[in-house]
Amino acid sequence: MAYELYYWPTIQGRGEFVRLALEEAGADYVDVARGSEQDGMGVPALMRVMQSESAKHPPFAPPFLKAREALIAQTANILAYLGPRLNLVPDDEPGRIWVHQLQLTVTDFVKEAHDTHHPIASSLYYEDQKPEALRRSADFLTVRLPKYFGYFESVLKRNGGQWMVGGAISHVDLSMFQIVAGMRYAFPKAMAGQERAYPGLVALHDRIAVRPRIKAYLQSPRRIPFNEKGIFRHYPELDR
Amino acid sequence: MAYELYYWPTIQGRGEFVRLALEEAGADYVDVARGSEQDGMGVPALMRVMQSESAKHPPFAPPFLKAREALIAQTANILAYLGPRLNLVPDDEPGRIWVHQLQLTVTDFVKEAHDTHHPIASSLYYEDQKPEALRRSADFLTVRLPKYFGYFESVLKRNGGQWMVGGAISHVDLSMFQIVAGMRYAFPKAMAGQERAYPGLVALHDRIAVRPRIKAYLQSPRRIPFNEKGIFRHYPELDR
Repeated sequence: MAYELYYWPTIQGRGEFVRLALEEAGADYVDVARGSEQDGMGVPALMRVMQSESAKHPPFAPPFLKAREALIAQTANILAYLGPRLNLVPDDEPGRIWVHQLQLTVTDFVKEAHDTHHPIASSLYYEDQKPEALRRSADFLTVRLPKYFGYFESVLKRNGGQWMVGGAISHVDLSMFQIVAGMRYAFPKAMAGQERAYPGLVALHDRIAVRPRIKAYLQSPRRIPFNEKGIFRHYPELDR
Repeated sequence: MAYELYYWPTIQGRGEFVRLALEEAGADYVDVARGSEQDGMGVPALMRVMQSESAKHPPFAPPFLKAREALIAQTANILAYLGPRLNLVPDDEPGRIWVHQLQLTVTDFVKEAHDTHHPIASSLYYEDQKPEALRRSADFLTVRLPKYFGYFESVLKRNGGQWMVGGAISHVDLSMFQIVAGMRYAFPKAMAGQERAYPGLVALHDRIAVRPRIKAYLQSPRRIPFNEKGIFRHYPELDR
């Protein structure tokens, strides 16, 4: 059975945390909205699910995953479902709760990273909320980034420095790769100044990047480049 | 064994979603930070956990729950842990994933409700971000509130109108009560104008409010009144 991932086809966004897990595991999956409309895929296929009146478990927003009869949304919830199936979580319940807790903290961070360029409304363009974005970004880079990255660094360190949880890779390690990569793209100056404070996270990022399947994925057309439609956007005026 | 809940003692905030679940279930619990410092409780007890260098699973922020040897943070994660133990989730895995997905959507809503008064930075006072709060609240009330409440209303309707999920109460029903109550407190004018569009949610709120244990809780000193330190704050200038 192939998993069906539904997410916006032109951005990494929240879907990327799921894509990385599927890729690392070598899972059989289809990135539906990136498929061809002639084959019944593309954005219309995503919209059909969103607008279905008969879906028993309607998603509030992408990403969502179809797995056999299940339809599951919310990034961290999808990863909690996939975790045991892709061997990307510990075997024990306390370990899984802990991985999920960390993934939910990633979710919070991602929302804050998004709101640096959209502090007023997702329904408005960045250009319509630029003064507010400047203020929010300044706080994000001086207060929030150190708080989150300092926390993740300390979690990694407490666990020995190799993996975030337990003795093997989990989806949270993949998410650490993604937020380091995203922050470097969006805020290269701030990251250049700050990332030496998080040597463990940077080393983890580098180890993830060269894992065979991840490396192949990053070099493939399946990896959408960072751009100014996604979560991590590079607006030089917001960086410092 | 008594559960130990750790949350800020003067606000409902995110901790309230956990308190409501514990109260509905008649669970034995201690609201630690509201206890006396002489008894080893109070805010210092909360801070000791936050600052512990030896905690295996350190929380990023309150609320967190101690249950035997477990220390669990993130509101929705705590509820996922408590759900089966308090009989507030369905028995089957798909039902539990679905309840959790809805709870995570509540989490997103709560963050957006918070950011109406803090669109720039949690580290600043409301008074320092008032013009931005006015803009963000306008979008929240006209775009986001209808989107979230319309979604929850449709989920409730699809399930028959009595409960959000399955044939019995779950912690998501309690959360629906809380967000309706919170929005009525924070934005009475906007809610007066809009809530007729969500008759199912309003009726659910009313049914939850008169459940014996919830009713007793709401009338007790354990229920902290809404105030201007929490998530749902009443600033008349933001309401319309």
